[in-house]
Amino acid sequence: WYTEKHTPNAGLTLRVTQTLLTATSPYQEMTIVETPDYGRVMLLDGLVMLTERDEFVYHEMLAHPSLYAHPNPEKVLIIGGGDGGTLREVVKHSAVKKAVLVEIDKMVIAASKEFFPHVASGFNSSKAEVIVTDGIRYVQETEERFDVILIDSTDPVGPAEGLFHIDFYRACRNILKEDGILTTQSETPFIKHFADVIPRVIKDLNSLFPVSKLYLASIPTYPSGLWSFSMGSMKYNPTENFQQERYAGDALKLSYYNDQIHQGAFCLPTFVQKLIEK
Amino acid sequence: WYTEKHTPNAGLTLRVTQTLLTATSPYQEMTIVETPDYGRVMLLDGLVMLTERDEFVYHEMLAHPSLYAHPNPEKVLIIGGGDGGTLREVVKHSAVKKAVLVEIDKMVIAASKEFFPHVASGFNSSKAEVIVTDGIRYVQETEERFDVILIDSTDPVGPAEGLFHIDFYRACRNILKEDGILTTQSETPFIKHFADVIPRVIKDLNSLFPVSKLYLASIPTYPSGLWSFSMGSMKYNPTENFQQERYAGDALKLSYYNDQIHQGAFCLPTFVQKLIEK
Repeated sequence: WYTEKHTPNAGLTLRVTQTLLTATSPYQEMTIVETPDYGRVMLLDGLVMLTERDEFVYHEMLAHPSLYAHPNPEKVLIIGGGDGGTLREVVKHSAVKKAVLVEIDKMVIAASKEFFPHVASGFNSSKAEVIVTDGIRYVQETEERFDVILIDSTDPVGPAEGLFHIDFYRACRNILKEDGILTTQSETPFIKHFADVIPRVIKDLNSLFPVSKLYLASIPTYPSGLWSFSMGSMKYNPTENFQQERYAGDALKLSYYNDQIHQGAFCLPTFVQKLIEK
Repeated sequence: WYTEKHTPNAGLTLRVTQTLLTATSPYQEMTIVETPDYGRVMLLDGLVMLTERDEFVYHEMLAHPSLYAHPNPEKVLIIGGGDGGTLREVVKHSAVKKAVLVEIDKMVIAASKEFFPHVASGFNSSKAEVIVTDGIRYVQETEERFDVILIDSTDPVGPAEGLFHIDFYRACRNILKEDGILTTQSETPFIKHFADVIPRVIKDLNSLFPVSKLYLASIPTYPSGLWSFSMGSMKYNPTENFQQERYAGDALKLSYYNDQIHQGAFCLPTFVQKLIEK
């Protein structure tokens, strides 16, 4: 059995039938295990990053709301996301011509290709360009400009801490085109330790972008099961600007995101509304 | 530590600081514990029924979508729900003149009044009538007629098994007024064992009611964190018939349900849409 404590007092416990890999990089420790309920599970520094069974929710919901709010997302940047799941979703869009993935830790990419081939399938796309470097440095130095930036980070401790700073969001905005959209994962609103992240991220995005929005999705193996994403947009309001004509319905073979969810995910429970009103 | 296995291979684990009560009735075993994260927790037959911290989601979301879809819900019947949380939400509505709660197990009512006074506060309402008897027999025998029926049951094993049968839904429909609404909790779509319940309940409601709808809410301490509710309605489509004029906004002091959630909860992920399309 493996237990991830989401706080010192509560957690998720999973029966493990096999440990497939333990490895350490300069950035983090990785463990990959086999579980009966969730299939293969990747843990970074002891926290569940993805499971075969429910990774589709996180990856679809990080990628598609932005990509269906923007009328023509030709160039997409993914910061982090070394498992390739977000990349897999991004390259499904025929509108996307190029997807750049910037991951600091090549260990994650290699392990995903070996143990999670379905997740890593986006790496096979001719649209994909993979750069192994620090995402913070990349956004400061690149000459490229993007329609959509997706921040696919771990929790705001350790290697990903800088990906939750307003300086980083500002540097991202500076490499967005004039109608660009940035979306970042922003933890759960239910657990107090994490919930403090949400008002700060939304406040920062609100100070940098004309439009800022929070949306939610249900991910069973993440703390509390309810996860948030924060969007900053230079021009498009995501719910008013849903790209119905480009929406491909079942053609992208999605299991969570759809045109109803594009609206429903932005409908927030009252306690979440209050978190971001402060 | 207390671990509830949601399947033989995965579960929720909570640190317990104190066991407040263990008791057995003819129907079930009850344990009430104190936990640092979720406050007091009531377990029935080893399953988390409610926690002080997140009970608001379940109770608000069982009650308010029906009560704000019906133009004048004067008489409401609650089957089960002996903790009083659903009753507390129902009697908040000024439109409600009478709320009948039918609970088979008086042990649950007594324990809730003692250990969860905030949850049990609905019992103090002059609108509330509490009947300790078998809900199945009650709906077959009563001469009363209701605007809204809420089925607040445990899982479809043990004492609540009969509350998931089409015969029971038919008996409920027979004591609804001609424009009545019935809503039942219907387990999680994420865990296969439970997910089988959803298509069956929706199929049964669809065969009995002109309108049948599934909706969702996020409850951290229930299996997978994503919970479903199934609604059968004699006349009103809940999303088209939202009672905006009667909607009291913050006046009911709700923490989850609001006018946005009334729409968003009915927006279903694709894998859930497919569950009920079969």
